[in-house]
Amino acid sequence: MNEKYTVETCFSPALFPYRMTTENYVVVIVDILRATTSVNAAFDNGVEAIIPVAEVEKARKYKHEGFLVASEREGKTLDFADFGNSAFNFMTPEVRGKTLVYSTTNGTQAIEMAVSNGADAVIGSFNNLEALARWIEKQEQNVLILCSGFKNKFCIEDAFFAGALAERLLDNHSRYASVCDSVTVSLDMWRQGKGNMLQYIEKAAHRERLKQRQQDDVLQYSFTLNNVSAVPFYDKATGRLYDANMNK
Amino acid sequence: MNEKYTVETCFSPALFPYRMTTENYVVVIVDILRATTSVNAAFDNGVEAIIPVAEVEKARKYKHEGFLVASEREGKTLDFADFGNSAFNFMTPEVRGKTLVYSTTNGTQAIEMAVSNGADAVIGSFNNLEALARWIEKQEQNVLILCSGFKNKFCIEDAFFAGALAERLLDNHSRYASVCDSVTVSLDMWRQGKGNMLQYIEKAAHRERLKQRQQDDVLQYSFTLNNVSAVPFYDKATGRLYDANMNK
Repeated sequence: MNEKYTVETCFSPALFPYRMTTENYVVVIVDILRATTSVNAAFDNGVEAIIPVAEVEKARKYKHEGFLVASEREGKTLDFADFGNSAFNFMTPEVRGKTLVYSTTNGTQAIEMAVSNGADAVIGSFNNLEALARWIEKQEQNVLILCSGFKNKFCIEDAFFAGALAERLLDNHSRYASVCDSVTVSLDMWRQGKGNMLQYIEKAAHRERLKQRQQDDVLQYSFTLNNVSAVPFYDKATGRLYDANMNK
Repeated sequence: MNEKYTVETCFSPALFPYRMTTENYVVVIVDILRATTSVNAAFDNGVEAIIPVAEVEKARKYKHEGFLVASEREGKTLDFADFGNSAFNFMTPEVRGKTLVYSTTNGTQAIEMAVSNGADAVIGSFNNLEALARWIEKQEQNVLILCSGFKNKFCIEDAFFAGALAERLLDNHSRYASVCDSVTVSLDMWRQGKGNMLQYIEKAAHRERLKQRQQDDVLQYSFTLNNVSAVPFYDKATGRLYDANMNK
């Protein structure tokens, strides 16, 4: 009865093959700047389902079939796509009730990697942190927080979120226990920065990249806590993300 | 003239393929608990050269040829070996002037990976931090700090050292500039813990493993700053480590 579920963090998809957690687990996909923040924004604006795809050509094919498509590479919206991947793109009535095809540089690959191992996968960002934690606590599963990183490199904003989620799950009387140094350091990062999240994230390299592309208007939204109640869950049967709270 | 050399950290050998630094660089191999600490201790006790080998069978072959061999797996000294890989093993006159064959779980593989890409490789631990930094500053090279980690997973003690070395290289009037979030977080870890290194490292998972094996007597030595002046450098022609300061 005292057996606890484990919480582990991988700082990069490249570290996923070396994870300690291999049984009965849910993977939380994290790509704060910007895929998972944007997916959560899309569901918050009434999207019914999202089809994540890794390859641009697959996204283009869906476009020809009449789907709305969000796709960018290196921060630029592709010519055939309806949207880029800024969260702001989805704050429009146009998406309500629609199924959206979504392709990005980092986030999509992380989802495909997670589910190819048979695990469940859900989408996390600061926006749905509390809703996500409550959903996780209803499962009887170990938790692996998978940071998308930037081109497989460690990135601050994803680890920062891992710390926030870990703190929430590991708090008093928790059924969860940390199993790795990555969780420990993520917690330190979160505790150091949570008092002023936007100031903390100033030092992140990706924040600088967004600034150079004049896309840093999305930062305020990306580091807003608990303004989204959706918990996008990957349905293996259909290959689509649905809001887990709507299906239950 | 104002062009700076870069400092990058990889938190795991599994992230090495995704490094940003690909030209004109030296790799600092780090495995604080315990390979690189032990290699530095060996040179400090008069070892002339170390032959790093990844496979146990290769180490056994060297033993039959009459070499002194240090080899352990999962923290246990192998039956045919003269030493395990605790730094204390090498604090004996027996090693003076000798060539030592050294095989360990994590460290050796990191060296082989680094040099297979044609880079120079040197050994770093807290013990030779200042000597290492001075040697690096004499080179005209970018710096990549490669943390061995634990079975390819992120580990605190190696990242903690990366922060210490990065701080030393990036200080005032430095010719170096950080290029990644891993350096930024390592610096934060170092600044948080440097006032009481042994207390900081209490939270590291590997510290607990050593405790369980009653091998934690090595901690005090492993987190001692600047008591070793050797800078073990990997000589590609012979496949051996020599003290760079002795050769020059």
